Amino acid sequence: MQKNFELLASNRYSKARRARLTTAHGVVETPAFMPVGTQGSVKGVSPRELRELNAQIILGNTYHLFVRPGLDVIKHFSGLHKFMNWDGPILTDSGGYQIFSLAKLRKITEGGVEFQNHIDGARAFISPEIAMEIQVTLGGDIAMVLDECVPHPCEYDYAAQSAEMTTRWARRCKEWKKANVERPTSNIQYRTAEAITYQPSTMNSLLFGIVQGATFEHLRKQSAQAIVDLDFDGYAIGGVSVGEPEEEMMRAVESAEPFLPPDKPRYAMGLGTPPQLLEMIARGMDMFDCVLPTRLARNGTAFTTTGTLNLKNAEFALDKRPIEEKCACPACREFSRGYIRHLIKAEEILVLRLITLHNLHLYLDLVGQAREAIENKTFEQFRKAFVSGYKTRDVDLTNN
Amino acid sequence: MQKNFELLASNRYSKARRARLTTAHGVVETPAFMPVGTQGSVKGVSPRELRELNAQIILGNTYHLFVRPGLDVIKHFSGLHKFMNWDGPILTDSGGYQIFSLAKLRKITEGGVEFQNHIDGARAFISPEIAMEIQVTLGGDIAMVLDECVPHPCEYDYAAQSAEMTTRWARRCKEWKKANVERPTSNIQYRTAEAITYQPSTMNSLLFGIVQGATFEHLRKQSAQAIVDLDFDGYAIGGVSVGEPEEEMMRAVESAEPFLPPDKPRYAMGLGTPPQLLEMIARGMDMFDCVLPTRLARNGTAFTTTGTLNLKNAEFALDKRPIEEKCACPACREFSRGYIRHLIKAEEILVLRLITLHNLHLYLDLVGQAREAIENKTFEQFRKAFVSGYKTRDVDLTNN
Repeated sequence: MQKNFELLASNRYSKARRARLTTAHGVVETPAFMPVGTQGSVKGVSPRELRELNAQIILGNTYHLFVRPGLDVIKHFSGLHKFMNWDGPILTDSGGYQIFSLAKLRKITEGGVEFQNHIDGARAFISPEIAMEIQVTLGGDIAMVLDECVPHPCEYDYAAQSAEMTTRWARRCKEWKKANVERPTSNIQYRTAEAITYQPSTMNSLLFGIVQGATFEHLRKQSAQAIVDLDFDGYAIGGVSVGEPEEEMMRAVESAEPFLPPDKPRYAMGLGTPPQLLEMIARGMDMFDCVLPTRLARNGTAFTTTGTLNLKNAEFALDKRPIEEKCACPACREFSRGYIRHLIKAEEILVLRLITLHNLHLYLDLVGQAREAIENKTFEQFRKAFVSGYKTRDVDLTNN
Repeated sequence: MQKNFELLASNRYSKARRARLTTAHGVVETPAFMPVGTQGSVKGVSPRELRELNAQIILGNTYHLFVRPGLDVIKHFSGLHKFMNWDGPILTDSGGYQIFSLAKLRKITEGGVEFQNHIDGARAFISPEIAMEIQVTLGGDIAMVLDECVPHPCEYDYAAQSAEMTTRWARRCKEWKKANVERPTSNIQYRTAEAITYQPSTMNSLLFGIVQGATFEHLRKQSAQAIVDLDFDGYAIGGVSVGEPEEEMMRAVESAEPFLPPDKPRYAMGLGTPPQLLEMIARGMDMFDCVLPTRLARNGTAFTTTGTLNLKNAEFALDKRPIEEKCACPACREFSRGYIRHLIKAEEILVLRLITLHNLHLYLDLVGQAREAIENKTFEQFRKAFVSGYKTRDVDLTNN
């Protein structure tokens, strides 16, 4: 069996790794950042622009797509790739995170989660098996197991029981996949006549397990060991960046990492700021997703290599410089801070795109530089220089 | 003196003309449609995309730019072209239309108009001379005289007096231009230190007069004669598409047109639907601007060659076709109606861009086809076929 993950270089002074992940829709060079396409669109930018930004892989949110447009529609269009016209790799989350953060009236049982969606309040039930079926229908290249992402802070006992249930759910996802690899037709009942023409296949998608355990080192270790025992194609660290202090987040990752096999990709979920990405790479993480570059852009905030800029501020009204000097993104090549500030004040929608393009470019370029630095054995210098030059300013960095 | 307007072909069976207008920032092949860049941005699309759509010239709204970001800012950035990164021709309106439609507490005197702007309520006064100064600061290629655009319906006496004042204002604009051609430095007081580095020149900009007269044939004729007597670089028909029935709009244009010199461009302001554009071209008009393609796009409405489509409708949820078959626009090349409908329902901002690109493409392609048809002496067949195939559906087509 051909390996889908190939380690290319590692770093003597840190756990940073340079690797290559092969998926059904193409190769992902890691460390990699995945722009978040919540509802079948990376907010503000087109798939063409994502390709021009050298985005290798994007994330699709199962919960959002399940609620709207719904699986009938995605199935009718032969999966998320064709629906949104993105032919590169897609990772789909399990929907768990949004069920626990957005949906209402949740009822969690061993069987799964019952909830009311946040759009029209319709009731739905998602089990580990249903989460797999939905993801197969979406047709992503990497699927995630259903997990419970506990809030911060969380009592030890609850975190322990939850992590154990997450492991049992992970086993059920794995078993579902095994049972369904050979019979690719979904069991879900579809209402459309076209159902028969679309036969989603699990053959090509990778399945990642998720380590939980809140901020408890012992639980992180236990969870990592139990999930790794189930043997997934990759491993995610979940339940981080949910409001805990940065040191606890780092510790949660450090607690789990030694138990993750080196020959499988590691995905730190929902992370983070540019310096956090480099710190996570130094701790052996390979893949990242985060809404910050797109969400803060819509609030007028640009990331730069020296920190964030709130472009709404009056100080930029007459500023002829681009958002960041020497930046090669489409916004910086063509527009000044002063013009961008005007567009924000005038509520012109073009500006949401421009700042989003810049922010995504920064994130994607940052992991690109990290890849190069790991290859050149200069990652530690690169990380230290970047982190020390970056000033965290007063913005709400909570993920969603 | 080199002529800036060259008639290339005319049509035996109608007044349709094919011509070429030369401006400081390039050539405009007419008939031409001008996308509206109200606040220094054609809503939803980038200057690069406008170029890719083959937009030849865009419109900038003096009133909006005067209010926000204000002239200090535009001056600091050396004019609207550089501020918004559009290097093609720009036509600036005089601001009159918005003062009469958007601003509050207007007080019109022979001297000019005093008003409170609709953003922060600040008082301002614009005279014909100030309208010229502002437009020179914006640095557009074509400036418009300040006029009073009377609402519909309008009493004959008011319309008559207003049209006469518009003529007196037009004379003052013309005189201001004449007096200032040789001394390009603006008289306006600027607060920024950079003022001295920017010396706007009126040398290169064309000045268009505006015919008013509401729906009264006699007044339209009188206004046209009086304005033409003042000898402008081009002539606009104003005060149309302000809520009057379509036949009255056609009659207003037909009443004025015979008095406009054939060797100058004619601009029908604020028009219109695709069939109206062709009808206006058949009546000897050369240039058009309209917010419909951009504004209706933001409401989920797409123009097609057979009428408008409300893409929000449930009927499109599973529709795999593009907005219009065989359309070469970026939205139709890449996305289905079903995906676009999903983006509207999910309030994804990408969709505003996609429908705007489609609608602008349709308008720009329509005038392109009209140009070709006039050259090929097939314009009348083209117009009749298009108009008879186009179904006007229930959308609010009032300009703003």
